[in-house]
Amino acid sequence: MNSFGRIFRVTIFGESHGEGVGMVVDGCPAGLSLVAEDFLLDLERRKGGTQKGTTPRQEDDFPIFKSGIFNDKTTGAPITILFENKNTRSGDYQKQRSVPRPGHADFVAHEKFGGFEDYRGGGHFSGRLTVALVAAGVIAKKILLNATKESEKISVQASILEIGGETDLEKGLQKAIDAKDSIGGIVECRASHLPIGLGEPFFDSIESVLSHIVFAIPAVRGIEFGTGFASAKMFGVQHNDAIENINGKTSTNHAGGAVGGISNGNELVFRIAIKPTSSTPKEQQTLNWETKEIEAFSVKGRHDLCIALRVPVILEAVTAIVLADFMMLEQKIHRVL
Amino acid sequence: MNSFGRIFRVTIFGESHGEGVGMVVDGCPAGLSLVAEDFLLDLERRKGGTQKGTTPRQEDDFPIFKSGIFNDKTTGAPITILFENKNTRSGDYQKQRSVPRPGHADFVAHEKFGGFEDYRGGGHFSGRLTVALVAAGVIAKKILLNATKESEKISVQASILEIGGETDLEKGLQKAIDAKDSIGGIVECRASHLPIGLGEPFFDSIESVLSHIVFAIPAVRGIEFGTGFASAKMFGVQHNDAIENINGKTSTNHAGGAVGGISNGNELVFRIAIKPTSSTPKEQQTLNWETKEIEAFSVKGRHDLCIALRVPVILEAVTAIVLADFMMLEQKIHRVL
Amino acid sequence: MNSFGRIFRVTIFGESHGEGVGMVVDGCPAGLSLVAEDFLLDLERRKGGTQKGTTPRQEDDFPIFKSGIFNDKTTGAPITILFENKNTRSGDYQKQRSVPRPGHADFVAHEKFGGFEDYRGGGHFSGRLTVALVAAGVIAKKILLNATKESEKISVQASILEIGGETDLEKGLQKAIDAKDSIGGIVECRASHLPIGLGEPFFDSIESVLSHIVFAIPAVRGIEFGTGFASAKMFGVQHNDAIENINGKTSTNHAGGAVGGISNGNELVFRIAIKPTSSTPKEQQTLNWETKEIEAFSVKGRHDLCIALRVPVILEAVTAIVLADFMMLEQKIHRVL
Amino acid sequence: MNSFGRIFRVTIFGESHGEGVGMVVDGCPAGLSLVAEDFLLDLERRKGGTQKGTTPRQEDDFPIFKSGIFNDKTTGAPITILFENKNTRSGDYQKQRSVPRPGHADFVAHEKFGGFEDYRGGGHFSGRLTVALVAAGVIAKKILLNATKESEKISVQASILEIGGETDLEKGLQKAIDAKDSIGGIVECRASHLPIGLGEPFFDSIESVLSHIVFAIPAVRGIEFGTGFASAKMFGVQHNDAIENINGKTSTNHAGGAVGGISNGNELVFRIAIKPTSSTPKEQQTLNWETKEIEAFSVKGRHDLCIALRVPVILEAVTAIVLADFMMLEQKIHRVL
Repeated sequence: MNSFGRIFRVTIFGESHGEGVGMVVDGCPAGLSLVAEDFLLDLERRKGGTQKGTTPRQEDDFPIFKSGIFNDKTTGAPITILFENKNTRSGDYQKQRSVPRPGHADFVAHEKFGGFEDYRGGGHFSGRLTVALVAAGVIAKKILLNATKESEKISVQASILEIGGETDLEKGLQKAIDAKDSIGGIVECRASHLPIGLGEPFFDSIESVLSHIVFAIPAVRGIEFGTGFASAKMFGVQHNDAIENINGKTSTNHAGGAVGGISNGNELVFRIAIKPTSSTPKEQQTLNWETKEIEAFSVKGRHDLCIALRVPVILEAVTAIVLADFMMLEQKIHRVL
Repeated sequence: MNSFGRIFRVTIFGESHGEGVGMVVDGCPAGLSLVAEDFLLDLERRKGGTQKGTTPRQEDDFPIFKSGIFNDKTTGAPITILFENKNTRSGDYQKQRSVPRPGHADFVAHEKFGGFEDYRGGGHFSGRLTVALVAAGVIAKKILLNATKESEKISVQASILEIGGETDLEKGLQKAIDAKDSIGGIVECRASHLPIGLGEPFFDSIESVLSHIVFAIPAVRGIEFGTGFASAKMFGVQHNDAIENINGKTSTNHAGGAVGGISNGNELVFRIAIKPTSSTPKEQQTLNWETKEIEAFSVKGRHDLCIALRVPVILEAVTAIVLADFMMLEQKIHRVL
Repeated sequence: MNSFGRIFRVTIFGESHGEGVGMVVDGCPAGLSLVAEDFLLDLERRKGGTQKGTTPRQEDDFPIFKSGIFNDKTTGAPITILFENKNTRSGDYQKQRSVPRPGHADFVAHEKFGGFEDYRGGGHFSGRLTVALVAAGVIAKKILLNATKESEKISVQASILEIGGETDLEKGLQKAIDAKDSIGGIVECRASHLPIGLGEPFFDSIESVLSHIVFAIPAVRGIEFGTGFASAKMFGVQHNDAIENINGKTSTNHAGGAVGGISNGNELVFRIAIKPTSSTPKEQQTLNWETKEIEAFSVKGRHDLCIALRVPVILEAVTAIVLADFMMLEQKIHRVL
Repeated sequence: MNSFGRIFRVTIFGESHGEGVGMVVDGCPAGLSLVAEDFLLDLERRKGGTQKGTTPRQEDDFPIFKSGIFNDKTTGAPITILFENKNTRSGDYQKQRSVPRPGHADFVAHEKFGGFEDYRGGGHFSGRLTVALVAAGVIAKKILLNATKESEKISVQASILEIGGETDLEKGLQKAIDAKDSIGGIVECRASHLPIGLGEPFFDSIESVLSHIVFAIPAVRGIEFGTGFASAKMFGVQHNDAIENINGKTSTNHAGGAVGGISNGNELVFRIAIKPTSSTPKEQQTLNWETKEIEAFSVKGRHDLCIALRVPVILEAVTAIVLADFMMLEQKIHRVL
């Protein structure tokens, strides 16, 4: 349930206000050079506090290797990495125990786990777990780069397309600041230089497996490949991409790089919708479990104005995880590098 | 790869122009009454030929039970059902061997399977395989109905929202007929009376598992839950659904029935984008593998004007498959009914 | 539950006295030549009626291809093969409904599946299902042969070592004939020319995965690798195999070809214990469910005197299935041949 | 690869001379009380140094909880537990780099992982990893106890039957001491009060799944259920267990508690063969990779005279892991306790 992948398999664990979060990566090829510094850039990109619109909570987020690395290289054994929680202020949350926060998992977690869940800051449901995803993604990205020739490096890059409906992102954020509220956004991911043939017909289509892990990112509400929802308004002759050469290159890329569930040699392109951060400074209504009354509720604590701002590096991470796994299944990446 | 599900597991097989298609359902509870008649309505809904916009190809699509049924009841052993192909006209396809059809899997299948793929009518990539999905869905729907009390039957219902951007569906189809082209559409699915607690945090969120199987349906290009892509333009206080009572009922349902990856007791609502049928009567350009030249190409054969018309029953099927599996994981459905 | 394997995955289905039995093999490489004749020798080896000590029940056991084969070659899509049941005499069994046969699964099947199980001839628990295993094994063997060079073909061969404690097998069978009872035996399997490196540390050791599938063969009660149980009486210096050259060749093979869960380049050797056929002509005591009384019971029907006689080809099959899967995981076999 | 289980899933990681070893248990029910003290008895039983015949290496083996526990109870989220390595003397091993130790995984690890493996003390192949198995087993045992009524507690107990062929264990050990060599043994496991119906026909028979995980224990060379290998010498009427009452109680238990792959309500009984510790003080021959010469080799370091002495608690652990998982699959244990 907390594991993903067939050959390259990621297991995540941890809680927002517990000891920390972490992950085990099993199936990583042996011989990949891996040191703490490899992680810092992407971890930094994920962190709050460095740009307008993200939470002031700061964690060092330094990866502590616990297994699978020897002489700064992967050994083929499972890689375990921990991230300690240092900057927790659980007191913010404990008083809210009887008030499930709107938009958060507090209510469902309580129902599903019978009240035994760690409720502090969302516990195991917290976005803090995305640190583990980003770390696994760093490994996956290194594997992908390692697997490909200099001129045709597989790259995975995500960026924000819209904030609050605005392509001028500053303008989008300002809307939220003005409204004293949180706001949603659109993030796009592109992967280039993929070989033809990743993915399987039907259940394990590349879109299937990607969307599976993409919806593991908190706050994602939709995903579309290529022209996506716009394709529902198109005619066939408009949408079909004409194959131009024997490498599968198409003149247009409405399909977004996948046909029949299989990568077709063109750029993989997809977009995801991120809802506004559930924690908003605005007053809201919610049920108080103890009093059984609806009451006014206002989030204190430290939160992101626009969670979408943190998503690109997480989206790259999960995409790289899927691509590394598919590359191994297609035997494009060996068990020893 | 051609299997899906953890407890209730569906395996599909077959080709468009081979012996037939079929499926094995493993993990079905024992004691479910199951006869051929149970399948006919949904199989009929999936079939072409009965409404404007679908292909005139007709198959009897009669389920032939091969295992797992005894005295008209499931036994707990794997259920195998075959559907024979009768109405095949392979000649239509064999002459196109060297011309990969735009928008179809012909090109990627050839690359992935080294030219050994059954290329007739798309072979194993064909939409004909959705017969197997619909049949598995019939079983899943019966399990769901069986598991729930009379007044709170779990229902799964999908319907077309738009054809070619038009909510007046006749109008949408007419656009395609006028353009002598195929056209896309939007399909929505709603599941009611779900218990709170289906799905897991992160990798096996209910959205993750649903989107995984939804992208197994050919021609799907996007999926969104609740307000979906529109949520990216919203403020937090607009999007958050206020919890109104201890059953988790919310005043609005922007989340579409899932928070933190877990069903929250409200109606599950999601929409998918269906691209226009790849086979269009319009002339297109494509590469000829033999001549290495781009050539004009025009689909003969029998095809759907709007493949979205067939999708609702398939979408219900895959949704029911996922829900039945989650219900078993949550022990809401027993191994013996 | 009825599926096995990570890349090369076998699903079996069917019942002793239903429509038939069969299997789906997913993950088979594309381009393997495969025709019905490939199966006949091993199916014949498994069949009863041809040697003293096996049941006179005769089935044609002709493989009927339903998917995954095109122009006599595998396509990379799931391969479905059916075997029809023709020679069933259900009447033999129906009268025994209230009397669970000693040593058979009748009692546990009834308890587990709530009385909905197909009880005729053991239903889905029947040894008849091993036809499906043998058929999957034929495919696996062909893959293994195909993957290796002429001089170093991987071979998998099983043979009977003992019947009723006698290495003179005729003598062992005669003991059973004289006693008018069924009898057990020991079967050994050897696989040669395996590469070093199949298997994983701990959970997916080669012994783990082999023993997993070996205990899927009805009547197996034990398995041992190399010197096996005898190693428990040995000193370390006796048991350790000295490595003699850089190919890993050892002077002795007490380990049976696996160290640390990984194939070590020597012959893989293991033995299994087969209990006497549960159906014996001798009178036995059992409970009558209806009367709740213990009553005398005597098996009619057609049965094997010594089920071990049929086991070698089944043991080869399951071994080949595991080895093919491991070879794919180690990328020694490609997805297109 | 380093994970096991369908609902109750254990992932292990770590190395003999790295930071430590540990595990993640996913799928543990919420609400189980769990504190460090729960682990100490079984960890102590596994430790060397306390009895004649085990290694003087001493580790504190104190469980450090990293996730999944809140207020001394499980939360339903993955439980991560670390054990630090403190008492390592890597120098013992580094000089042996070019000399693969006979009977150990040094050679195969080097071949499989291309020389990138952590070779110190066997690295990830080390028996030290069994600490993680024992810890997971402690959780599984608590779940099993919790799931059953006072009078019918499921118990899992393993004990040594033989050392070096002697049932008088002191005598067996003395043989090894006299010979200045290591020695093997036989361990038996019994589980009582299991419900009828655990296990599946064929691939997931209870014997299949148990033997799978049992061969994950280093040094296991064989497993047999009930009368096991002795059954190969028996007649049918001798081996069959007569059912005596409607609870499935049989007059004898030659089957060892499983028929048709399913628990039958009798005591589960199986035995495993443990080879002599590979590290023996005796001089042995092995290949030197650098010189390519066979050379005399003698183990220094700290090692067990008889590794079988440590096995009972590990065998109990893996058995409990399998039983907890099967109990959850059969819905005998709920997701919230």
